[in-house]
Amino acid sequence: MVSLVNLSKVTDKHLEDIKLNQLGGGSLLIAWQLKGKNVLIVGGGKVAAQRIDSILATDAHIRLMAPLDGLGKRSRKLLELLPDRIHHIDKEFTGADDLNGIEMVLTAIDDHHRSLEIVQLCRETRIPVNAADIPDLCDFYFGAQIRDGPLQIMISTNGNGPRISAIVKNRISSALTGYEGHAITNVGKLRAMLKEREPDTAVAASKRRMDWMTQLCNEWNIEDFTVLTEDTMKRLLEEGFEKNRVPAIEEVGGTRKQFITSFRDTPSTTYTLIACSTTGFLIGALCAASIFMYHSAKH
Amino acid sequence: MVSLVNLSKVTDKHLEDIKLNQLGGGSLLIAWQLKGKNVLIVGGGKVAAQRIDSILATDAHIRLMAPLDGLGKRSRKLLELLPDRIHHIDKEFTGADDLNGIEMVLTAIDDHHRSLEIVQLCRETRIPVNAADIPDLCDFYFGAQIRDGPLQIMISTNGNGPRISAIVKNRISSALTGYEGHAITNVGKLRAMLKEREPDTAVAASKRRMDWMTQLCNEWNIEDFTVLTEDTMKRLLEEGFEKNRVPAIEEVGGTRKQFITSFRDTPSTTYTLIACSTTGFLIGALCAASIFMYHSAKH
Repeated sequence: MVSLVNLSKVTDKHLEDIKLNQLGGGSLLIAWQLKGKNVLIVGGGKVAAQRIDSILATDAHIRLMAPLDGLGKRSRKLLELLPDRIHHIDKEFTGADDLNGIEMVLTAIDDHHRSLEIVQLCRETRIPVNAADIPDLCDFYFGAQIRDGPLQIMISTNGNGPRISAIVKNRISSALTGYEGHAITNVGKLRAMLKEREPDTAVAASKRRMDWMTQLCNEWNIEDFTVLTEDTMKRLLEEGFEKNRVPAIEEVGGTRKQFITSFRDTPSTTYTLIACSTTGFLIGALCAASIFMYHSAKH
Repeated sequence: MVSLVNLSKVTDKHLEDIKLNQLGGGSLLIAWQLKGKNVLIVGGGKVAAQRIDSILATDAHIRLMAPLDGLGKRSRKLLELLPDRIHHIDKEFTGADDLNGIEMVLTAIDDHHRSLEIVQLCRETRIPVNAADIPDLCDFYFGAQIRDGPLQIMISTNGNGPRISAIVKNRISSALTGYEGHAITNVGKLRAMLKEREPDTAVAASKRRMDWMTQLCNEWNIEDFTVLTEDTMKRLLEEGFEKNRVPAIEEVGGTRKQFITSFRDTPSTTYTLIACSTTGFLIGALCAASIFMYHSAKH
C-alpha cells in the first residue's frame, strides 16, 4: 500500500525519498473568515439548518432563501430566535440577481437541476459554493467538527465515509479534557495584556514577548491557564515576564486545578496498569519479606 | 466568562437558552478542493516552502513566483525534485497579468506593500487569497495540521497563538494510534467494493449499504480494518453484507492486531499509575506479612 505522507514533517535531507504518488489525494484544510460577510443558504430543511449552525459561528450575515412552507422545524426556530442574524427571503432561488452582494453560497435543496444552476452561476462570478447534493462540483466540503470556544477542530476523511469520521472525532474528543477552550481564551487575554504592557513593535521586543509566551505554554499545563483571572494575569506578567522567568501558578495566586480526562482504554494503557500493579505487588512482598527475615534473623 | 457554544450540539428544545453573545467568534473550517487547479505562491522563503508542502497534498498545479536568487533551500529542493508539480516563474510579482488563470493565491514575501497590492487585486477578481503578513485581509487562515493518508485534521485557535495550537495538536496526535489513515483507506476500498457488488441506486438499496457499513464500523475497532486485504474484503461482503450481519474479523480470515498507542501523560493517568503501584505494593506487603505471621505462629 502507498502511504501518503505529511510532507511538512519530512526534513530537507529526506525529501529525495518521497515518491510522487505518496503526495496528493488530500484537500486544503483552512479556516475561512466570514465576519460581516453575506452568506446565502438556499433551502430550509434539515441540512439547511445544519448550515445555519455552522455559519452562525462565524459572525456572517445569513440570508436564508426558501419558501416559508418549505422551512423545517429547526430553521423556523432559528429564524424566530435570531431575527437579527438570519434574514429570511420567502421565495425559491430564481437567478443571478439572487446572488447580488453574496460572498458564499450553500445549497441544500432537493431540486438537483436548480442546485446545478446555482453552482454554475457561482462559478461564473467566483463565489465559493457548496452544494449538498453535488459533491463533485463543490469548491469545498464540510467535515466532522469539534468546537470549544475559540478552539475549532475539523476532521476530514476526504470522502471515505461519515461514520469513520465520527469515530475518529470521538477518539479525539475523548483525548481532550474539555478545558482547552477556556485555557485558549485566557492565553489570548494574556497575550493581549502582554502586548499592552510592552507595545514595542521592534523585532527584538516582539521576539522577547513570543519567547516568554512559548516558555510559559511549555512549562504550564494547558489546564493551568483556566484558573487565571485579570488579577493573577497581572501578577504573572509582573513576576514572570518582567523578571524573565516562568513562575509557578501558586506563586501568582492561583491553585493548580485537578482535572479529569476520560481515561482511554487501550491495550497499552491496560498493560501498563497491570505492569504497575504487579511490580508494586512484588516490591511490596519483597519489602515485607525482608523486614520479617531481618527480624527472625535477629531473634 | 461567556462560553461559546457548539450550536450543532444544541437540540431544538434548548435553542431558547442560547444567548446571542455565545454564538460567533469562530471561522468556517472547510476542506478546500484544489485538484487540477492553479495555485500561485508568491515568494520563495521558508513560509513559501511551507505553502508548497500544503498545496502538494491537494493535487493542484503550483506556480511558484520568486526571483531565482530569492529561493530558499527547501523551495529549491522541492522544485528540483518535483518539476512536474511545481512550475517556477523566475520573477517578482508585477501586476494583474500574473493572476491569469489562477484560482488561489498565497503570498509569503517581505515586501508588505506588494503583498497588499496582491491582496487587493485578488479581491477585485475574487480569487481566494492568504497573505502571510496581513492576517486581517486574508480570506482564510491556515492552522495546525495532522495528516495520515486520507485522514486530515486541522486545529484552529482563531488567532490565540500558534504555541497553544501546537500543544493541542500534540494532545490530539497522542490520542491517535497511527493506524487510522490505513484503516480509513481500507474502509474506502470496502465501500467501493460494496457499491460494485450492489450498484442499485434506489433509496432502499443505498440505505441497506449505508446501514451495514455503519454497523460494521460500530462493531469493529478502527484498527481491525487495517488487516483487510482484497480477499478478506470479498469474504467480509459475502459472509457479512450478503447475510446481513457483522462477522468477527477472524471469521473472514484476518487476525485482530495488537496496536500500541503512545501513552498520554496526563495528571489522571499519572494518578492512576501511582494508585495502581501503591495498591499493588500494599497488597504485596500484606500477603508476605500474612504468610510470615502464619509461619511464625505455627513454630
